[in-house]
Amino acid sequence: MEHPKQLLPDFNMRYRGKQNAPKGTSDAEKDDLPEFEPFKGALPRGPITSNDQYGLKLVKLDLHKSVNTREHRTDKFKHHDLIIRRGQKFTMTLTFNRPYDVSTDYAMLEFVIGKNSRSGKATYNIVLLNKCPYPDDCKNMWERGELNLTYNRISVDITPSAKSIVGKYHVYLTVSVPHWGKQRTDLETDIYVLFNAWCQDDDVFLNDEAQRNEYVLNERGIIFNGETNHVSSRPWDFGQFKHGVLDACFHCLNMSEMVLEDRKKVALVARRASQMVNALDDNGVLVGNWSGNYAMGTPPAAWTGSAEILLQYKRNSAPVSYAQCWVYAGVLNTVLRCLGIPSRVVTNFNSAHDTNGNLTLDIFVDEDGSMNRDYTNDSVWNYHCWNEGFMKRTDLNSKYWGWQVVDATPQETSKGLFQCGPTSVKAIKEGQVCLQYDGKFVFAEVNSDVAFKMVDKHGLWKTVQVNTSHVGTKIVTKAVHSNAAENIKDSYKYPEGSRADLATMAQATSFGCERDPFYRSSLQETDVDIELMAPAVQLGQNFYLTLEVQNKSLEQRTVQLSATCCVTYYTGVDYGTFKEERKLVSLGPSMTEKVNIEILANEYMGHMVDQGSLKFICVGKVQENNQVLGASKVVLLEVPILSLKLHGEVKVNQEMSVTLEFTNIFNVVLEHVNLRMEGPGEIGLKKKYYEYVSPGASLTWTESFVPDMPGTGGVVGSLVCPKLSHVYGELDFDAQP
Amino acid sequence: MEHPKQLLPDFNMRYRGKQNAPKGTSDAEKDDLPEFEPFKGALPRGPITSNDQYGLKLVKLDLHKSVNTREHRTDKFKHHDLIIRRGQKFTMTLTFNRPYDVSTDYAMLEFVIGKNSRSGKATYNIVLLNKCPYPDDCKNMWERGELNLTYNRISVDITPSAKSIVGKYHVYLTVSVPHWGKQRTDLETDIYVLFNAWCQDDDVFLNDEAQRNEYVLNERGIIFNGETNHVSSRPWDFGQFKHGVLDACFHCLNMSEMVLEDRKKVALVARRASQMVNALDDNGVLVGNWSGNYAMGTPPAAWTGSAEILLQYKRNSAPVSYAQCWVYAGVLNTVLRCLGIPSRVVTNFNSAHDTNGNLTLDIFVDEDGSMNRDYTNDSVWNYHCWNEGFMKRTDLNSKYWGWQVVDATPQETSKGLFQCGPTSVKAIKEGQVCLQYDGKFVFAEVNSDVAFKMVDKHGLWKTVQVNTSHVGTKIVTKAVHSNAAENIKDSYKYPEGSRADLATMAQATSFGCERDPFYRSSLQETDVDIELMAPAVQLGQNFYLTLEVQNKSLEQRTVQLSATCCVTYYTGVDYGTFKEERKLVSLGPSMTEKVNIEILANEYMGHMVDQGSLKFICVGKVQENNQVLGASKVVLLEVPILSLKLHGEVKVNQEMSVTLEFTNIFNVVLEHVNLRMEGPGEIGLKKKYYEYVSPGASLTWTESFVPDMPGTGGVVGSLVCPKLSHVYGELDFDAQP
Repeated sequence: MEHPKQLLPDFNMRYRGKQNAPKGTSDAEKDDLPEFEPFKGALPRGPITSNDQYGLKLVKLDLHKSVNTREHRTDKFKHHDLIIRRGQKFTMTLTFNRPYDVSTDYAMLEFVIGKNSRSGKATYNIVLLNKCPYPDDCKNMWERGELNLTYNRISVDITPSAKSIVGKYHVYLTVSVPHWGKQRTDLETDIYVLFNAWCQDDDVFLNDEAQRNEYVLNERGIIFNGETNHVSSRPWDFGQFKHGVLDACFHCLNMSEMVLEDRKKVALVARRASQMVNALDDNGVLVGNWSGNYAMGTPPAAWTGSAEILLQYKRNSAPVSYAQCWVYAGVLNTVLRCLGIPSRVVTNFNSAHDTNGNLTLDIFVDEDGSMNRDYTNDSVWNYHCWNEGFMKRTDLNSKYWGWQVVDATPQETSKGLFQCGPTSVKAIKEGQVCLQYDGKFVFAEVNSDVAFKMVDKHGLWKTVQVNTSHVGTKIVTKAVHSNAAENIKDSYKYPEGSRADLATMAQATSFGCERDPFYRSSLQETDVDIELMAPAVQLGQNFYLTLEVQNKSLEQRTVQLSATCCVTYYTGVDYGTFKEERKLVSLGPSMTEKVNIEILANEYMGHMVDQGSLKFICVGKVQENNQVLGASKVVLLEVPILSLKLHGEVKVNQEMSVTLEFTNIFNVVLEHVNLRMEGPGEIGLKKKYYEYVSPGASLTWTESFVPDMPGTGGVVGSLVCPKLSHVYGELDFDAQP
Repeated sequence: MEHPKQLLPDFNMRYRGKQNAPKGTSDAEKDDLPEFEPFKGALPRGPITSNDQYGLKLVKLDLHKSVNTREHRTDKFKHHDLIIRRGQKFTMTLTFNRPYDVSTDYAMLEFVIGKNSRSGKATYNIVLLNKCPYPDDCKNMWERGELNLTYNRISVDITPSAKSIVGKYHVYLTVSVPHWGKQRTDLETDIYVLFNAWCQDDDVFLNDEAQRNEYVLNERGIIFNGETNHVSSRPWDFGQFKHGVLDACFHCLNMSEMVLEDRKKVALVARRASQMVNALDDNGVLVGNWSGNYAMGTPPAAWTGSAEILLQYKRNSAPVSYAQCWVYAGVLNTVLRCLGIPSRVVTNFNSAHDTNGNLTLDIFVDEDGSMNRDYTNDSVWNYHCWNEGFMKRTDLNSKYWGWQVVDATPQETSKGLFQCGPTSVKAIKEGQVCLQYDGKFVFAEVNSDVAFKMVDKHGLWKTVQVNTSHVGTKIVTKAVHSNAAENIKDSYKYPEGSRADLATMAQATSFGCERDPFYRSSLQETDVDIELMAPAVQLGQNFYLTLEVQNKSLEQRTVQLSATCCVTYYTGVDYGTFKEERKLVSLGPSMTEKVNIEILANEYMGHMVDQGSLKFICVGKVQENNQVLGASKVVLLEVPILSLKLHGEVKVNQEMSVTLEFTNIFNVVLEHVNLRMEGPGEIGLKKKYYEYVSPGASLTWTESFVPDMPGTGGVVGSLVCPKLSHVYGELDFDAQP
């Protein structure tokens, strides 16, 4: 028996000898599959008997876009391609030049993602129009429902696996001629496959329609900020369905060169997204800036939504300036919802920062009661925003499935990729801090102790007070279908000091979270207490700080009090001390005394920083027994809000007018005032600039928008100037069809 | 009561408002602690009463280097500073200008590492000469033994915490004057602190003196390679105690900007070391190259040890060219042993590569039996080297403590830092693949299945055979105090097919390792078997490949056999096909037939690559029942060894001569021949170059070395030229004092 000798030596360097082929890392790159692919080593057994075998041609393709997207809840996307969710069937209709004969014809649809698609199992998917001859091997294929043949037209239901790669697939119709080769027709259409919270087999399945509507489909939200006793909020336009946002989200994953095979796994996608939303290391989306100097970009407080940021990033393939935590959280939320992962923005009040899993924040206090800046390097953020994504963590025990923390704000200063999470919220609650990813870091953010250390005459530091409940005092997120704050602290922590809480702390400590447990047991109880109190304060107001000193003993007590007043960033970092006061207080047995310190606007206004607040540290020394007392308090300065007013009724494709009003209630001139309004429609973002606004002056600014979708919507406004920021307003409307 | 008003506003941008101070990331940077540090806020209570309080001066410091290093097993280091291990006491003697009076004097030693040392707890360590007044706060300090006061001399025993940061500490003597400040004397000496396998409280504690001598102190080793049925070996000079190597190792950690606080934790240090030994992402030590073209650097096979590589890296702060897996493993082993972490080089035979935790490697075979290069992208390495480090993984359950895989070879192609491990070997054995770090990747390397897929007439692939025992066939390391190969496969895997093995596979699958379990159950049993056999082959020899075909049925069988012969890299990647053969075999019932295929040196020598081997893939089709058979075999080509001969006796500080001999046994001219010998002494590395060596010609090369330490030592030689590499030789000696 003789065969044609087909020696095809391939003596080249195949990827430098280390691998056969690189893996695809972008769904924007396309595999140039050949129009004709001969079967290698196929032995022709005579001439081809009939033209029909390869004369089959597609004349029309119908993707039933409006029906499919409605069923897949992707109809809000403004996109020319078909967008579907995995694990759910969609319908295609193919019209051929002649009837399809299953006994002689052999055609298949190929759904292909990225380069070198044939190497990976999930990057290359076949749907056979004929019956699959190898049921075992066909288990890996996308599922095909019954064929519906009508003369030369075939309707076919296709269900992409619930474990499909998310991204943009290119589609081919391929006709196989036995022992000869494959004839391929590029259908010149892309199909986007997203995560599916409605599909039980998908790892993002969320079994609650109201929650799915909020956490996947709601395009607008509320981000909470402020101070634990004084929660404020700002509106945010996530805009995940806006024109171009979907492609911008996949662009992020492509820029990070995330291997396509990994994009099947929701935990890995969420982790990569957290990495790509910050610019560090990898030219991700947003540059962080906490300095107050935003001249080279947009001040973090000016943004009103994510779409503008993501679109600018896609356009320039370069990071966008600037962000602080709520901007990172807003944009990451958009990316997650856009890809189909249920997600929400969470705000943690008194968030411990950058402690390398060490559970104690040390505040070093000099003998005179002022904080020692050279030694004190830990800080507590007034608030910090991160995200939660809902998913099955198939890499962890099922008790850790559910909400997972992901955080795009670059907090760690160590080298390595700036990414955080997903971390199971349930694992945090149980002290299981070593489960991947970044459990220790998140655990410390909500659980650290604050220790006051005071210097002695030899320069040694002595721990004088430990506060175990100062950190993670409140953890909130926007409620489902309401703008209220839902306190979800219980999902992160057991009640302070409860038996379960102690078990959690023991668990975390056993995994190497370093805490100094002796503090609680050996610290001396003091018989005098101090508490700091202040009213709600408007920026620019004078007010009184009250020091309440309580003598719990049955003897006379004389206390030397020393109060330091600083301006701090919302990150807890001090900007500067503007006032120091000393008071001597004498207290009879069981007496309580109040000392008022007047804080004048003139004292702090000159040193105000972006989103600054006031921090008061008070240290006391009891002369009778040398006991040392400590207390601190952060006072938030409230800013005015913008008023937004709607004129007339709101209808789809009709102009609507919105008027923004603002009055300068301060006795200083506001200079370089930037205003923004973000509303519905294709040209939804408007900006306006005022050189200055005099004290007492009011401004009004009217803009028009054209809603392009019926239903509820909103307009968000912001005002930013060097002396004043975080001024917002919003209004809701219901657009009639 | 009046106090001086000391308002010190600090209205600058403190690290851009985000943090108080950056963390130290290098032990080579020094904190410039002030010579005089006044106590801030200290309130002077009158003039200083006596000069004595601040007149105390150090006149002499004795670090007892030879006693301390002998006790700490660091006496082999060639270094001018004191090197100690953590958790173990060392002695210092301080001589003052006058007697030290504990009732009025107040002095302390400060051990300080990196910048901003005061911020971190472990970067700044105090040892008080006086009694510590706050026992609780002093728990964090390094321990001090009894003081030994003799007039103006104090001897003090100090025990650095067993959880200390490893690295270079700067030492100060500081005298405190109450209510005034600290007077600081820079002792102008550094103390290096390393991990301590001899200390029970250290996470690297290894309770076996023979093992500690091998895995921490042995400077030479054996790295195994070759092919699973034919294990070869090469000597390697780890050289962890050589001059400059210790500083080069810490330089790696500093280059990676590893936060100093993290350098307490052995798992994090080992992980960072695995990242820094390869050059990718972070300008680490070694550039990988598998191409065969090494003109721009040193061929991987030429290196004889790690010291030259690490010293070159330190000198240039730039990556060194070139490495393949055993070079990475050799250098990582040096770094780990040098830092005090018990470690060894491990070789895994038939190592599955880069499968993203997917447990099936697919080999696609065309109808004619040849491998389809377009579809086959997975590969099995003939062997792969990695390291194991011994440690308590305090982040994991104690059952996963012990040996941990760390791998510096950059294998993953996804973006992210190229680092692998530590992964608990015990966790791999139990299928606990989700425990950090990189468990899935290592699990797949030793456990993947190999599936043969054959194309049908429509171009569809059908699985025809699955081999579940082809991967991870042998896992070896050098035995303790012997050059033998110790098979440690049992520590990674239960016996194939055992009940425990099935449980492990089920466990791994439950954590998302994707395997196609149906293969085993539904694949058709064939009634004909093929096996490939070959003798041990010298490079340049002709030999016969034998196909043994066994008919297990009671009927006649006719088998169409097709064998493809390729040259492959040791990575399993094909370089090219040099021969294809077809044979038709007829077998009576229960008969076995052998078919020989002659392989001529001329056929493969022209296409030989660096460390290449021959791979044979044989596919058979049974004509009577259309069953498909598959088999593959790798044949290693043995290379000659170098002969090294010693002349005369070996004494410390005396010249010794070594002669290297090599004969070209091939019938081709060897061109551009590079020789190396690495021996003892300061100038331990010698190189020589020959333009060519004719067929049959011999070369001899004699060099002299000067041993600088008594005891056992060795010389390692290597020969590299484009046509021939991996030619080694070594000799051992015992240097007399």
